[in-house]
Amino acid sequence: MNNFSSISEIFPRVRRKEVSPVDLVRECLSRIEKAHPALNALITIAAESAMAEAQAAETEIQHGMWRGPLHGIPISLKDLVDAAGLPTTAASAALSHHIRTEDAELTRRLRQAGAVIIGKDNLHEFAYGGSSLVSHFGEVHNPWDRERIAGGSSGGSAAAVAAGMSYAAIGTDTAGSIREPAALCGCVGLKPTYGRVSARGVIPLSTSLDHVGPLARTVADAAIVLEGIAGYDAADITTVDVPVADYSSALKQDAKALRVGVPRKFFYEDLDPEVASAMDHALRGIETLVASVTDVQLDVPTDRTVAMAESYAYHANKLERDPDKYDPETVRRLRAGEKISASEYIEKRREIDEVRRRIGEVFGDVDVLVTPTTPIPAPLIADLRSNQENLRPAELKLLRGTRPFNVWGLPTISVPCGFTQTGLPIGLQIAGRQWREDLVLRVAHAYEQATAWHKRRCEV
Amino acid sequence: MNNFSSISEIFPRVRRKEVSPVDLVRECLSRIEKAHPALNALITIAAESAMAEAQAAETEIQHGMWRGPLHGIPISLKDLVDAAGLPTTAASAALSHHIRTEDAELTRRLRQAGAVIIGKDNLHEFAYGGSSLVSHFGEVHNPWDRERIAGGSSGGSAAAVAAGMSYAAIGTDTAGSIREPAALCGCVGLKPTYGRVSARGVIPLSTSLDHVGPLARTVADAAIVLEGIAGYDAADITTVDVPVADYSSALKQDAKALRVGVPRKFFYEDLDPEVASAMDHALRGIETLVASVTDVQLDVPTDRTVAMAESYAYHANKLERDPDKYDPETVRRLRAGEKISASEYIEKRREIDEVRRRIGEVFGDVDVLVTPTTPIPAPLIADLRSNQENLRPAELKLLRGTRPFNVWGLPTISVPCGFTQTGLPIGLQIAGRQWREDLVLRVAHAYEQATAWHKRRCEV
Repeated sequence: MNNFSSISEIFPRVRRKEVSPVDLVRECLSRIEKAHPALNALITIAAESAMAEAQAAETEIQHGMWRGPLHGIPISLKDLVDAAGLPTTAASAALSHHIRTEDAELTRRLRQAGAVIIGKDNLHEFAYGGSSLVSHFGEVHNPWDRERIAGGSSGGSAAAVAAGMSYAAIGTDTAGSIREPAALCGCVGLKPTYGRVSARGVIPLSTSLDHVGPLARTVADAAIVLEGIAGYDAADITTVDVPVADYSSALKQDAKALRVGVPRKFFYEDLDPEVASAMDHALRGIETLVASVTDVQLDVPTDRTVAMAESYAYHANKLERDPDKYDPETVRRLRAGEKISASEYIEKRREIDEVRRRIGEVFGDVDVLVTPTTPIPAPLIADLRSNQENLRPAELKLLRGTRPFNVWGLPTISVPCGFTQTGLPIGLQIAGRQWREDLVLRVAHAYEQATAWHKRRCEV
Repeated sequence: MNNFSSISEIFPRVRRKEVSPVDLVRECLSRIEKAHPALNALITIAAESAMAEAQAAETEIQHGMWRGPLHGIPISLKDLVDAAGLPTTAASAALSHHIRTEDAELTRRLRQAGAVIIGKDNLHEFAYGGSSLVSHFGEVHNPWDRERIAGGSSGGSAAAVAAGMSYAAIGTDTAGSIREPAALCGCVGLKPTYGRVSARGVIPLSTSLDHVGPLARTVADAAIVLEGIAGYDAADITTVDVPVADYSSALKQDAKALRVGVPRKFFYEDLDPEVASAMDHALRGIETLVASVTDVQLDVPTDRTVAMAESYAYHANKLERDPDKYDPETVRRLRAGEKISASEYIEKRREIDEVRRRIGEVFGDVDVLVTPTTPIPAPLIADLRSNQENLRPAELKLLRGTRPFNVWGLPTISVPCGFTQTGLPIGLQIAGRQWREDLVLRVAHAYEQATAWHKRRCEV
């Protein structure tokens, strides 16, 4: 039961009618039944609608219709993403949990690709945190060690994928909220280029920094899901009309021609010794797979003004009317954006545009950047809970190495690159130039195929 | 001397070497010498460099090189637009008036097209006003009546074009600053779609609402200049990579298939009787040129929060350090944006995106909208000066009908449509859907060709 497949392993069997989508949904529901009580990874388990969708997919496939590799595959959605027929809670009591009547644009695309929506993932309330300890539906636990956080804000999504409750999940990432939980839970998490995936129908945290993307068990699976959701949406002004590549085919090319840059400053500082050692080992492995590995210098943007102002702006009305509906910790975080002036915001927002324009220059010398995803493995829940003052600094530390890539808007992936002595996953982060998810995926896939980290399964 | 040509009349003669660019520069300099003292339309007269550029153009043309219809044509730039070798003053003492070393992107494109930069036009200080009465270099006067304003903020540009000091000018338009002075001075002013022309190297007023575009003596000339400056600029994130049409060719098609919408509410309310009468007359004329003229309903956006916040943000540092360098009236206007919070700004900015998305719907039923450009003709300078309280309300009234098109981001042109009994020009405004400057130009050209208003010349 723990040796669950990846999408790329299972979809050819679905296509050949050896496995039915109904079997896949049953398999996921069975794991949810077993693991969910301990992990609390899901807010809504869409057993009934998923079964109906799987049956419809089965009928289509039986009749010779083939929508592609997502046809009949159970996918879960971070509970910020609308799916018609299910509530969207944002893990908060502040939202009315009525049934949504429309799909988010990405959900619509997933359904078009034949995917089955198996449920809605638990998360950090309104995505404003990196631990998933603040949720109206209770904290999420790490599938590798239930005493530890799953990360966040897409903590439920990472736990669900790592524990085989869904074949992949859709998360959002404003400072690392896809990659950090992916790293802490030992799965793959991909934040695409800013503007690559429509955020229409997804509750925002900070519209200038929000990215929507997949969590999956392998790089190839992340590529398959990205293909399903990527592309211009005329009704979402943050998306850009840039052609979407065939990411699955891109993986078939090796990484031998690609140049890797290693930004030692900041990203490799103050690492947990086991993370540092895993990175050393990983970089030595990568050296054998690519054209070159060289150190690069980067100026790292660290300001959080834009994120604070935008998240407060989105919540301002509701927050001032109904503060009691939010967790007090979320209220504190949101209110940090209250006093920011328009001129300060505009100036910082302008700096983001400038920084996004200039980061392109580093990709004259290298094709991708490689860093650790998080400087430490998953912390103990008890340590973060011991003192109200501990939580935010711990989260900020966890997101330290992921946040700059949201400011830059670059496509960035986290892939498993080792385990600590006590069996906690460690993640490696690979970023590429704007719109070149294909190059990021190629290096990540080459690395993954040369290692076995992604094959290890947690106990469910 | 007053019967000066349009670009489309003169360029074939330049091409055939019947007229030299040097003659054109001499002709403009001679009109500047005669008219400038009374109108104060220019801040920098680039006699020497323009002559050198004209000689270079002449040499190229003599040697059989032909850059296109702008080759050797004297153009003036609103003094917010950088031109290497000339200062950019923004009509303010707050800017150091040192010589700029780089061209704005649009200036680079104009030079590429062979244009000669004849000078820098006077304007309302930092473009923050519709009268051009606030300028470190003194007020601009209307060429049709020197007791009256030329409008603003591109007042000097409109006066220069109307009085034959340049063949066309580049202006900027945040609430009407190209179209309003064009209307008051009896020339053509075109605000292209938001994102159509690079604003890199142009001092901003409000980056979400700023548009750069031509003022010219005819619609065909506006099309020629737009072709010269339009197009994507990777270094200006406000520009969008949408193909630029051949606007001059578009004019050759008539407007018989196009449907005109008339938004009576707001745009046709509280008009000066002579403006109302000119509009009646113009609409009857347009009816004979197009497929249909029908009333349409529009919700008109009126908020000024974004403009106030963005203009304050740009000036905040300098303003707080050196308030005395600005005109006190400009300080008052800028400071109105000081207290706006980030969340209020973000919400209003989001509304602009929403309004821009939704305005497209009106163009299901019609191809263009027609309104008066300004509700009144050019006011007397003495009336606006009589009381400090008079100026801003008068300007806001003048810009009432142009401002919504900046919020919508739609391509919008003003063309002459009559004169008052006392000889003051009246302007008619035509707007089209996003990126369809070609349709706007077609209707404007058809109307212009059916009337003689654009042929009337002011006394210089």
